[in-house]
Formats: sequence, structure tokens, C-alpha cells
Amino acid sequence: MRLSRYFLPILRETPKEAEIVSHRLMLRAGMIRQESAGIYAWLPLGLRVLNKINAIIREEQTRAGAIECLMPTIQSADLWRESGRYDAYGKEMLRIADRHDREMLYGPTNEEMITEIFRAYVRSYKDLPLNLFHIQWKFRDEVRPRFGVMRSREFLMKDAYSFDLTAEAGQHSYNKMFVAYLRTFARLGLTAIPMAAESGPIGGNSHEFIILASTGESEVFCHKDFLSFAPPPASIDFDDAAALQAVVDKWTSRYAATSEMHDAAAFAAVPEEAQVAARGIEVGHIFYFGTKYSEPMKAVVNGPDGKEVVVQMGSYGIGPSRLAAAIIEAGHDDNGVIWPESVAPFHVGVADLKVGDPATGKVCADLVAQLENAGLDVLHDDRDERPGAKFATLDLIGLPWQVLVGPKGLAEGRVEVKQRRTGERELLAPQDAVTRIVAAMRQAQA
Amino acid sequence: MRLSRYFLPILRETPKEAEIVSHRLMLRAGMIRQESAGIYAWLPLGLRVLNKINAIIREEQTRAGAIECLMPTIQSADLWRESGRYDAYGKEMLRIADRHDREMLYGPTNEEMITEIFRAYVRSYKDLPLNLFHIQWKFRDEVRPRFGVMRSREFLMKDAYSFDLTAEAGQHSYNKMFVAYLRTFARLGLTAIPMAAESGPIGGNSHEFIILASTGESEVFCHKDFLSFAPPPASIDFDDAAALQAVVDKWTSRYAATSEMHDAAAFAAVPEEAQVAARGIEVGHIFYFGTKYSEPMKAVVNGPDGKEVVVQMGSYGIGPSRLAAAIIEAGHDDNGVIWPESVAPFHVGVADLKVGDPATGKVCADLVAQLENAGLDVLHDDRDERPGAKFATLDLIGLPWQVLVGPKGLAEGRVEVKQRRTGERELLAPQDAVTRIVAAMRQAQA
Repeated sequence: MRLSRYFLPILRETPKEAEIVSHRLMLRAGMIRQESAGIYAWLPLGLRVLNKINAIIREEQTRAGAIECLMPTIQSADLWRESGRYDAYGKEMLRIADRHDREMLYGPTNEEMITEIFRAYVRSYKDLPLNLFHIQWKFRDEVRPRFGVMRSREFLMKDAYSFDLTAEAGQHSYNKMFVAYLRTFARLGLTAIPMAAESGPIGGNSHEFIILASTGESEVFCHKDFLSFAPPPASIDFDDAAALQAVVDKWTSRYAATSEMHDAAAFAAVPEEAQVAARGIEVGHIFYFGTKYSEPMKAVVNGPDGKEVVVQMGSYGIGPSRLAAAIIEAGHDDNGVIWPESVAPFHVGVADLKVGDPATGKVCADLVAQLENAGLDVLHDDRDERPGAKFATLDLIGLPWQVLVGPKGLAEGRVEVKQRRTGERELLAPQDAVTRIVAAMRQAQA
Repeated sequence: MRLSRYFLPILRETPKEAEIVSHRLMLRAGMIRQESAGIYAWLPLGLRVLNKINAIIREEQTRAGAIECLMPTIQSADLWRESGRYDAYGKEMLRIADRHDREMLYGPTNEEMITEIFRAYVRSYKDLPLNLFHIQWKFRDEVRPRFGVMRSREFLMKDAYSFDLTAEAGQHSYNKMFVAYLRTFARLGLTAIPMAAESGPIGGNSHEFIILASTGESEVFCHKDFLSFAPPPASIDFDDAAALQAVVDKWTSRYAATSEMHDAAAFAAVPEEAQVAARGIEVGHIFYFGTKYSEPMKAVVNGPDGKEVVVQMGSYGIGPSRLAAAIIEAGHDDNGVIWPESVAPFHVGVADLKVGDPATGKVCADLVAQLENAGLDVLHDDRDERPGAKFATLDLIGLPWQVLVGPKGLAEGRVEVKQRRTGERELLAPQDAVTRIVAAMRQAQA
């Protein structure tokens, strides 16, 4: 992508309204723009990150056997009356009357709707287990939206819903999502710790997945072993209930709790050098709630003996829009964002330090072509700007690799390759720069 | 994908509420489910089609130089007051009050919001031309939603917005989208005819893109030459204004009009054997409206002489959700849908006609693996169902290719390959079936 033809509105000033670093950097790097309180437009650079997060979530959901669908944003109030949540949900629900004065709402979550879909079609235990997910915009009318897309009113959520015949099978479905979430966060470059949690308005048992960050909204307590546990491998067999249970057991074998669930005595029993008390950001939440919705909404199947069985359900949420901010909270420095390779909006920035010079122009064009042919996403800074502005922009937007092409270096047959994370710089022949970056990216994505 | 682990709720009965064939077939094939009047959930098979349509639209928009962003669904009423459309829009606009009684709305289109984004960041003519698009859910509160996703209230729209310094540059931007639309519809397997149109509530000059279908909502009149014009090639240079103008001139050189714009005298001048009077479905609409929004909303840039210039704008809409239905209107028979290769939810269905037989099971597994390795999307019908039900399902969901694997054929080393569109059947060795299908798909996608 040629930057002269792209839309990357960098802000020089630090926006005053932004209280946390991810909000500041997303505004400064031209990733998002607030359109109303807690409602954001995703500018091109931000959307690229959001789409890459979605792709990883989708892959891991699919690997775990969940099937993607897409439910609408607007729901009927009647559906929520069936579960009893229409009146219970409170002011966070955005309630709407249509032109015929029918009561509608902007979905804050989809338990009722997915249960309606399930009961409309599924008749037999033979069609279970079933797990359907979608990635769709939700709305929660927070009284005080803040922190940019970390706590917005309109936000993107991946929500999955599992249906099973028995509680045991339901636990297996829950464990599939538990393991899928561990893999998802690891691929996003995050160390997420599952913590037993209160289930809130959805009801039932649940785990929150928390990443540690000094700007986190809540206090959390855990054993430091979690910070070095390896995530489950891609080869794990999601049909193998025992293997999944072993992963879940391992990841729940140490103390970990949000402040709501904190047990000071139990935490005190953790060896002192292993006690971690920190702030955390919730990046995922999974629930097992049995028949909470299937019972009132009559989601039943015929069991093996021909008798009707009320199905066991769970739901599993991740917020991709919030994750974009959480990844920045976990990865930045004074100069800007430091993206993990997996979600970087572009993998490489190639900066022409003397636009108009045929030599730098040709080397840049060749580098871009070769890097793109290797499957990498490349941003080509071909703007007529001074080098200092280009360095600052590349650092700010946080691409993992920078290639700086100037006439001085080229006179010696060299370009400068800079790794954003380490700041390490190398002078290399253009061809060696390509080899170096492609090899490093392959390794990072393996 | 193994069908036994998929969610494909086929309906045997023809749903009574469906008035047109696409609505009937989308319900029967388990593609969509109505959740409220004019509001649909996309079930897994339908979502696959929708995503493939989106991918083609996205590719062609990007090829034409448009840049993707993503604006929110909920907008502030104040923004629409700036253009004067808040009061003008009428009851089709879904108006919402949030918890603080601020007036909001569910966006039916995004001219105001994109103009707000533009004016917030763009200062110089050097940053033009600029074309930003997004693919986002919209809501129009139709008084009588009908025809399934063809005329729903919540619908997906790709809308692009161009910004230029001069009217001439604005025309070039308009022509880019005109050409991109011709390519998009051709890749979707549709013959779409551009027709000069009244511009409606958006204002300015415009073309509608219409496909001919007996169930079309409006009467259209055109020269039959349009039915055989070749679409512009992928190699067309979107920076070459003259080349684009030549394409636009060609595609506007014959009579073509919707009933609102119909000129009976001009149509009578078309040779009688070339007169086509038919029903049509609008599948895209492009507008050039100059300063209609930029003037009241003060979207200005500094021109080359340092003076402020109000920018020239256009907007360009395609409805991917409506297109899914339109493609079915244009491609079906009594047995079900006939998908073009480019948007088929799966390219091939492999049916095991005797589930449990190790021989058919092994051949099916091999076929699926080889076809998937060749990059095709494969649905593997491994359900324990009678062959007749499998044939009917495959015909109904309209995959371009079927491979039927039964013990009788296998005894002679053969599987049956059926092409959905022609009904043509061949008995081939499994390896030859793979070769045959992969070659045909490569040709279709070239």
C-alpha cells in the first residue's frame, strides 16, 4: 500500500480526552475516531488490526468445532420477555420503538436469539453437540463510556453458544472454548489468565480471561506460574475430552481471582514470591449456565429414549474491538504502539527517505514487490516528507519491521532494517533485508 | 466440512410467507431465518455466500483505489441536522433515544458521518482524490418489509464516498466506481445494466445498476446489446481517466431506463428487435452530488493557490445481502439454487451414499482431502441418510459440483460427477473426478 494513496490521519498532539495509553495511541495513530460518546469509527489502519484479530478468533473457534453464523443487531423485545431479561436488563439495554411502535432493542448479547434459532430447527440429540458463533456489533448503553474502544457503547463481540444433551457433554463444550480461548490470546501475543468469576446478569458458572496491565480496570490476584504456562498446541484434539480437561485442570490449578472473587486467606497460602497482585483487563468471558435459557424458552430435543430433554447451554464472549486496545496496553513504548506480528496492520514499513530520487524510488519499489510476493503486508511511505516525520510515523503505528531507504546508505549498497520491538538496527543489502524480514516473520507466525 | 458436524437446517415444506423464489429457496436451504419483520439471521450456509460476495466487492473497490474503513451503526441526530436530512428523512429512519435522552439513529446511509470524518482530518488538495468505503449493517424502517433479504429493514450495505478538488476529478472518481461495479457484478455472475436514475433523497446525478429478473420490483426498458457487452478487464488502469470514460460511454451509449426515467419516444427509436422491456432488480446505485453535503458541513481543503475549496463528493452503494437474493433470482431451477462458482457456499459436495461402508468412506475422505488441498471448499455429506435425500439437498443448496460415491460405482472403480448447472453426469475414476473438477473450477475463476 502506497502511503500517498492511503488514509492515515496521524495526530501530532496528544488528545486531552484520552485517559489511557491505548486510547491516546489509537487516536494519534489514526486508528479510530469518536463519532458520539462511546461510539467509534474504525479508520483504515484500525480496521486492518480489527480484521486480523477477527481472523484469529474465527480460526480458533472453527478449529474447536464452532460454526459461524451472523445474527442481526436489532432484536424483538418479545424474545427477551421469554427469558425474563427484558425487564431485568436495566438501562444498559438500548431500547427502541419502530415506526409501528413495536418494542425492539439493540442486542447487548444473543442468548435468547440463538435459543430461538436452536429450538426452531433442532429436534434430535443426534444433532448435538452444536456450537454456533457470530462476530457482530453489540450495544450497551454504559452510563459513562470511557477509555476509547476499551469501554465503548457500540462494540464488536464474538459470542458463541453451545448446546448439549447432558451436563457432562456441556462441560466438554465449555472446555473446548476454554482451550480455544487460551490459544486465541496466545496468538494475539497476550498472556491471559483464566479466573473463576461471578457470572453477572447472564447467570451460571464462568471464567474470565484477564491480561495484566497497569491500566486495568480491576484488581486481580494470581500465582506467577500463569505467566509462563505454555498455551495448548494447534495439534490438540478437541474431541478428546480427557485431553481438554487436563488443559483446563492445569490452567485452574493455581490461585487466580478477580477482586470480586478474591479469597485473601487462599491467596496468603500462595508462596510469597509467587504472589502477583496487579491490575487486569478482562478480554474474554465464558459461561456455563445449563438450562437457564433453554428451560423457559423450551429448547428441547428428543433423547436416545425418545423422551424430550431440555438442552444444556453455555456462552462464550470475546471483544475484538476491546482486544485491539488491550493489545496496545500490553505492547507500547514512549514512541508508540508495538504490534505483535499476528495483528500488525502491516508487517513492514518501507520508507523512501528521498522521494523523487530515482535510486531510492527503485529500491523501495523492488523491496515492496518482493516483500508482498512473500505474502507480507507492506506500507510504502512514498510521501514527500522529511525523514524525521517518517521515522516518527513508523514508530507510532508500530509495524514490526522498518526498512529505511536513503541515498547515503544506497551509495554503499545498503538499506537500514529496524526491528520495532527491540530497536535493533542492521545495515543490509536490499536483498538480504528481504531475506532477513521474511525469515523472521515466518518464524513469528509459525 | 463434514455435514454431520455442520448446521444446515433444510426445510422440506415451502414456507407460505415467501412470495418470491429467492426468499423461498433461502429459507428452504437453511440460509436465513427471520427474527422479526424484515430482520434476518444469516445461518452458516447463507453467511458463507454473504462473505464471498463481500470479498469480491472488497477486491474490486480496492482495485479501484477505494480504502476500507468501518463506521458505526448508531449515529447522532445532530450530525444529520447539519445536512438538513434529520427532519427530511421521514419514518424510514429508525430514531432512538439513549439513556441520557440524546437523539440518535440507526444509520440508513453515511454521507454525513463520512463528511464529518473528512473535514476532521483532510486539509490539503494534495490529499485528494480520496475514496473511503465500508461494509456495514444499515437499517431502514420500511413500512412493509417483504421478499426476505431482498427488501429487509436491517441490511448490509457497501457504501463508498469520494472526495475531489474539482468537478472533473469528481467525474473521474465516479467513473472508477462505475467501472468497479461493472466488474463486481460480472464476477458475481450477474448481467447488470447501468440506467440513469432519479437520485431520490440523496440528491444529484446517478446511475442504478439493474439486473433483469421476472420477479423484479420495477419495470425497466433497454437495448438488448447490454446483455452481451463484455465487462471491463482486470487489467484496466483506474488512473487512466480517458480509458474509464470510454467504458462509461460504451455502457451508456444505448437506451436504458427505469420506469421513473422512461422516455417512450426514445425507446420507440430503438430497433424493435432490440427493445427489451422487462422487470428489474436494483443491485447498486451510484451518485455524484457535488457539494450537497460538503457545502453545509464545511468540508473544505486548501487548493493549490492556498484558497479554500469546497470538495466535490459522490457516494456509491451496493447491498451484499440483497445481492445474495438477486443472484438466486437470476440462477435457480425447480430443484433449487444454482450458484455461480464465485459465490457458491461450497464448490463441491461429496456425498457418501452408504455411510458405514469402509470403501465409500475411504474414497470420500480421499476426495475431500484432495479437493481441499486444491483450494476448493468442500461439503462432505457423511450423514446417515438415504441417497435420495442427499441428492435433493445437494440440488437445493446448489453447489456447482456434486460427487456421488456409492458401492455399486466403486465396484467398477467409478464415482459419479454431476454438474449442477447443466445436470451433466459423468462416471469417472476418483482421481479423474478431482482433476475434472479442479480444472473446471480454475477455468471458472480465471
